Amino acid sequence: MDWSDASIDSVAMQPLIEMAPFGAESLHLQPGSEEKKSTDYDIIMARDFERSLSGDVHLPALVSELRPSRIFIVTEESLSKQFGAAFQEFLGSAVDCPLELITFPGGEKGKHLDSLGPVFNRLIDGGVDRRSLLMALGGGVVGDFAGFVAATILRGIPFVQIPTTLLSMVDSSVGGKVAVNTGKGKNMVGAFYHPSAVWCNLGSLQSLPDDEWACGLAEMAKHAMLESSGQVRQRLMDSANSIKEPETLAPRILESMSVKAFVVARDEKESGLRACLNLGHTTAHGIESLSDYSRFSHGQAVSRGLVTALLLSGYHGFSRDELQKNLVLMEQLNLPMDTAGFESEQLWQHMKFDKKNVGGEIRFVLMTENGLELSVPVQESEFEKAWKEQKERYG
Amino acid sequence: MDWSDASIDSVAMQPLIEMAPFGAESLHLQPGSEEKKSTDYDIIMARDFERSLSGDVHLPALVSELRPSRIFIVTEESLSKQFGAAFQEFLGSAVDCPLELITFPGGEKGKHLDSLGPVFNRLIDGGVDRRSLLMALGGGVVGDFAGFVAATILRGIPFVQIPTTLLSMVDSSVGGKVAVNTGKGKNMVGAFYHPSAVWCNLGSLQSLPDDEWACGLAEMAKHAMLESSGQVRQRLMDSANSIKEPETLAPRILESMSVKAFVVARDEKESGLRACLNLGHTTAHGIESLSDYSRFSHGQAVSRGLVTALLLSGYHGFSRDELQKNLVLMEQLNLPMDTAGFESEQLWQHMKFDKKNVGGEIRFVLMTENGLELSVPVQESEFEKAWKEQKERYG
Repeated sequence: MDWSDASIDSVAMQPLIEMAPFGAESLHLQPGSEEKKSTDYDIIMARDFERSLSGDVHLPALVSELRPSRIFIVTEESLSKQFGAAFQEFLGSAVDCPLELITFPGGEKGKHLDSLGPVFNRLIDGGVDRRSLLMALGGGVVGDFAGFVAATILRGIPFVQIPTTLLSMVDSSVGGKVAVNTGKGKNMVGAFYHPSAVWCNLGSLQSLPDDEWACGLAEMAKHAMLESSGQVRQRLMDSANSIKEPETLAPRILESMSVKAFVVARDEKESGLRACLNLGHTTAHGIESLSDYSRFSHGQAVSRGLVTALLLSGYHGFSRDELQKNLVLMEQLNLPMDTAGFESEQLWQHMKFDKKNVGGEIRFVLMTENGLELSVPVQESEFEKAWKEQKERYG
Repeated sequence: MDWSDASIDSVAMQPLIEMAPFGAESLHLQPGSEEKKSTDYDIIMARDFERSLSGDVHLPALVSELRPSRIFIVTEESLSKQFGAAFQEFLGSAVDCPLELITFPGGEKGKHLDSLGPVFNRLIDGGVDRRSLLMALGGGVVGDFAGFVAATILRGIPFVQIPTTLLSMVDSSVGGKVAVNTGKGKNMVGAFYHPSAVWCNLGSLQSLPDDEWACGLAEMAKHAMLESSGQVRQRLMDSANSIKEPETLAPRILESMSVKAFVVARDEKESGLRACLNLGHTTAHGIESLSDYSRFSHGQAVSRGLVTALLLSGYHGFSRDELQKNLVLMEQLNLPMDTAGFESEQLWQHMKFDKKNVGGEIRFVLMTENGLELSVPVQESEFEKAWKEQKERYG
């Protein structure tokens, strides 16, 4: 399939991605494009520091190709001991330019506008120039924060994403959205800025808590649902029992990233198609807001929101057979699908404040009889019905 | 001339710009391009709030076309009284969306990372969304700061530059470079982000101090020198005596912007040709650094640096006749051309810290026997000779 030729309407009607290359090891986004674009970068899978899952392509080789004058590794304080030192040692022995580790407070609270100053100062004191390379080592929070630092220091220097969680591998490391929080809201200040490469070291998932696995798998389920040939979903379903094995997981991650990359390549700045990635997010934002962004992680909220979106899709003409397969996928992956004790009235009130609402209406990404629709107005009564059905099915 | 086809080498060898359209009133950058690009925007000249110098195109019409949900005017505190209230009244009577004036401390000290938080908060409290329009009302400091705010709030919203000084009209309002300062340096944090339009109200120049006129005229002289047919220079020279008259000034400003726009359109991200805009800046940065960024404005430093660059160009084979015409242009415009009491040894020490240096060598943009050269290493002895000649000629 030609990657440069697909309209929004056709997304749900035909395979999103050409499956052939993804049995292999590494993914180069936009293979159909001849010109190097900002959305054009390498994704490398590794089993651990020593062993690449991407044939000959490993991080040190890629870094050498970028020929940085110096490297700054940015990570959050809590990860510095866990990953920072080992990573610095690994990279230090493989490249021959100065290397510096910079930490920031981390967490959603530390991913703040106010945390930028000290990091910028460290970079400047460390002699940052336009050929310096920044590496974002950590989960989504680090990728967002360090990516924004890379996007703005000296008006932008190259950076590499080193996601250490499953969620950040399949979600935030692809797509070029970087941001920090302000006192007034999440991700209110940011940029669209793509990494030069993404290095997924599956070794870093060994210590990942079960909750975090669920977050990543929920996004992978979402991406699988968006790929309408059903192949991505089928493979993920077939892999469910051994999903934590690196050899099983690596190709599933690449397929998941491919779905996202396909969408992002067509709508980098979020003016249309990219909205499909918000499948499940309308309810999820309500759940997060209602629980004050503390009780549930984003992924746990999205997982529950996906169920709601699927049930609503069913009311809008989406095939019951497809719907059921999507729900079974989520069950197989042991994803949280219940209503978490919330009533639909409470949720509805909180969903009203979503920044993506237009003119006071609450809109969902749904799969309808027409295919994927990006902005379907939903009435409170209909939402109530879906939430009730979700409660009956999953508690 | 085809705007999409010019190599770096040919810049000094042939006219940079097609002169024909610039007798007219408004400039649309990249007229040769069919696709709307980020460097593609309207520039509108106005005599005052009521009278456009651009035929029918006036600011309110342009704003209506952009259909903003709300407008935020960002300006610095010192300009708020002088321009802010009048502008808000003018615009408020012409457009029918909510309008809010936001000020920040201003000056190079106020154009700081730490000033961003309060402005972001005002925007969020004011209901900023992706269809909001930000207007940067002021000189280069405001354009840089407010432009960076526009580039990053919600990952970027549309903005319009309303430059109120001659320098910001011909220089910073075109080119898409926006930035803030950190405690460790000027413009260290920023982005490449283009306005949707630039509105030059010549009425705002009525109260411009003589020093500020000189700053703007120095940049215009620089642009004229870069346009190698000599037409832009000749027209500027012919206009020197009546340069403050709006009818004379407007086309000269547009020509000057055109030279910059031509360069920027070819090298948006400063990887090559754009460096030619640093003509005169190597010495200028030394002068600014040596005088602690307080005694001289940027433009006053650039003016003196242009003389040095021209004299050095002469040593590198640049035509003596062309050189002399450029110096006469500067004299006609009453630009500061003296050495300001500095010794070449002092200057040289401070020039060593310029961030554009490569490998410890000090490099100049020069016009040589080969045309425009972007990175010519200059020895201290040669610089000393040029500085001595400048002192003999201009004091």
